[in-house]
Amino acid sequence: MIQKETIATWFQGLQDRICQALEEMDGKGKFQEDAWQRDGGGGGRSRVIEGQVIEKGGVNFSAVHGRLPEKIAEALKLPESDFFATGVSIVLHPASPMVPIIHMNVRYFETQTNKPSNSQTPVWWFGGGIDLTPHYVVEEDARFFHQKMKDVCDRHDPAFYPEFKRWADDYFFLKHRNETRGIGGIFFDHLNEKRGISQEKAFDFVKDVGETFAPTYVHLALKNKDLAFGEAEKKWQAIRRGRYVEFNLLWDKGTKFGLDTDGRTESILMSMPPLAQWFYNHKPEPGSREGQTLSWLRKGVDWV
Amino acid sequence: MIQKETIATWFQGLQDRICQALEEMDGKGKFQEDAWQRDGGGGGRSRVIEGQVIEKGGVNFSAVHGRLPEKIAEALKLPESDFFATGVSIVLHPASPMVPIIHMNVRYFETQTNKPSNSQTPVWWFGGGIDLTPHYVVEEDARFFHQKMKDVCDRHDPAFYPEFKRWADDYFFLKHRNETRGIGGIFFDHLNEKRGISQEKAFDFVKDVGETFAPTYVHLALKNKDLAFGEAEKKWQAIRRGRYVEFNLLWDKGTKFGLDTDGRTESILMSMPPLAQWFYNHKPEPGSREGQTLSWLRKGVDWV
Repeated sequence: MIQKETIATWFQGLQDRICQALEEMDGKGKFQEDAWQRDGGGGGRSRVIEGQVIEKGGVNFSAVHGRLPEKIAEALKLPESDFFATGVSIVLHPASPMVPIIHMNVRYFETQTNKPSNSQTPVWWFGGGIDLTPHYVVEEDARFFHQKMKDVCDRHDPAFYPEFKRWADDYFFLKHRNETRGIGGIFFDHLNEKRGISQEKAFDFVKDVGETFAPTYVHLALKNKDLAFGEAEKKWQAIRRGRYVEFNLLWDKGTKFGLDTDGRTESILMSMPPLAQWFYNHKPEPGSREGQTLSWLRKGVDWV
Repeated sequence: MIQKETIATWFQGLQDRICQALEEMDGKGKFQEDAWQRDGGGGGRSRVIEGQVIEKGGVNFSAVHGRLPEKIAEALKLPESDFFATGVSIVLHPASPMVPIIHMNVRYFETQTNKPSNSQTPVWWFGGGIDLTPHYVVEEDARFFHQKMKDVCDRHDPAFYPEFKRWADDYFFLKHRNETRGIGGIFFDHLNEKRGISQEKAFDFVKDVGETFAPTYVHLALKNKDLAFGEAEKKWQAIRRGRYVEFNLLWDKGTKFGLDTDGRTESILMSMPPLAQWFYNHKPEPGSREGQTLSWLRKGVDWV
C-alpha cells in the first residue's frame, strides 16, 4: 500500500504548482491562504484568488480523518470505521465571459476498520475529474479541451475516456433544465482494485489528471482573455453563472457531502461565482451565439 | 367537505387581489402572466413583475391534480391515490436594499384513494406561511411584521402564533451558516382535523393569512422605499440575496418537491433574486449595521 501521507503530500504539492501556474497566467492576482483545522481531525489550506483574468477562484487542499460519519458510512455501504480523505478541489470564475469556467477535483479516500477481529482489508479508492463550462461554446476550444482529456486517459487505459466522458455528461447535468452544466470532460470515482486497477496505477492516473489541469486551462485562458465583449456578453455570463449556482446547490454530491458533514462552508462554497443573475424565463434567440451555446449543452456530444 | 374547486377559486381571487395591491404600491410595474398546463393534470398562472419598487417578483397560482407521484406518496406516507393541490406562492425582491424581501405561500392538498374497497376518508390539509427577509433588520419594522402575524393567528387560536413562529424559525434556517434566512414569521403545515381543526376553520385561517399579506408588505415597502442608500448597501443586499439563493436551493422543501415532481422550473425558480453576489469569507464589521443585522438572524427572537 502507498502510505496515505504520501498521497496527501503529493496533492499538497499539486496545489502549490497549480496556484503558481495560475498566478503566472493571471499576471496580477495572488492567492490568499486560509489554513484551517477540522474538529474531528485533519484540516486544509483554502486558497482564493481575485485577479484580472480570474475574477474569483479557489484552489483548495484538504486532508481530513477521524470517525466516518454514520450518514456517509450508510451512503457508501461501509462498516463502522475510521476514514482518511485527501484531495484538491478547484473552481475558477474568469472575469471575461469569453473565458470558460473550469472545475477540477482529485481525491483519495480510505477506511480502516478498527475492530481487530475484522479481517477486512482497508477500503480505498481514487476519484476525480475535470469539466469545462464555457459561457460561449467555441468548437475549437471544446475539441482542444476534450482532446487533452482523452490524451491523459489514453496514456493509462484506452477504455477510460469513453467511460469517464459519459460519466461527466451524466454527472454535470441540470435535470430541472434538461441542460448539461457545460461541455463536460471526465469524471470518475471508486477507482480501485475491484476495477482491476492497482493502487499504484490509479495514483499514477490521478497524478497525470492533476498535472494536465494547469496547462490546459492556461492555454484556454490566454487564447481568449483579450477578446472583446460588451454588456450583452456580461449579462449572458451572469445567467450562465446562475446555472452554475443551481447545479452546485441542487445537484452536486460533493457540495451536499461537505455541508452534511459540517465541512468548512466558506471552502465548500468558494465554487459560487462572484455575481450571478436570474431573469424570469430568459430564452436566447435561436441562432444567436447564446442560442448556439445552449444547443451544445446536451449529453453525448462527441468532441474528439 | 368544502369543494376543492371552491378553495382553488378563492386562491385564484387572492392572486388577483395581491397583484392589484402590489401594482398600486409599485406605481410603475405591471404583472405579466404566463398560463401553463401540467402534463399530468391541471395548471397555473405565473405572474411576474419588474417594477420600480419591486425589482423582480413572482405571484403564482396553481391547481394541479392527477396520480400522486410515488416519491411524494412515500415521503407523505400516503397510499396509492389521486391528489389535488392548489395554492398561491409569492417571492418579492425589492430594488432597494432598505426594503425587505418577502415570501408567502398558502396551499391546500387533498387525496382521494381510488380503490372503492378502501373505506379510508380522503386526506386533506392546509399549509402555508409568511416570512420576512430584511437586508437590514429594523427593529420597529420587525415588531410591526410579527405583530401582524400574531394578530392574524390570534383571531383564530391563541396557540397558533407561538407554535407557527417557532416553526418558521426552524424552517427558514441555513444550517450550513447557522443563520436564519431573515426574521422569520409564521409557518404551518398539515392543518386538519387530526389537529382538531375543521376544514372550514382551517380554510378561514388560511384566507385570513392570505389577506394579511398585501397590506403588511405594502406598509413596509412604502415606509422604506425612498430611504437613501449607496454602493455599500447594494453590495450587502447582493450578499443577502446570495444567502436567499442558498436557502432556496439547498434547504427549501417546496423547491425540491417542485423540481422532483417535474414542476414548471421557471415558476419554481421565480424565487431567485435578479442578482446575487458571493465574496469569499465576507464578514461585516462587528457593530456595523450589517453586523447588527447578522446578530438578529438567529432562532428564538421574541419580537412581540
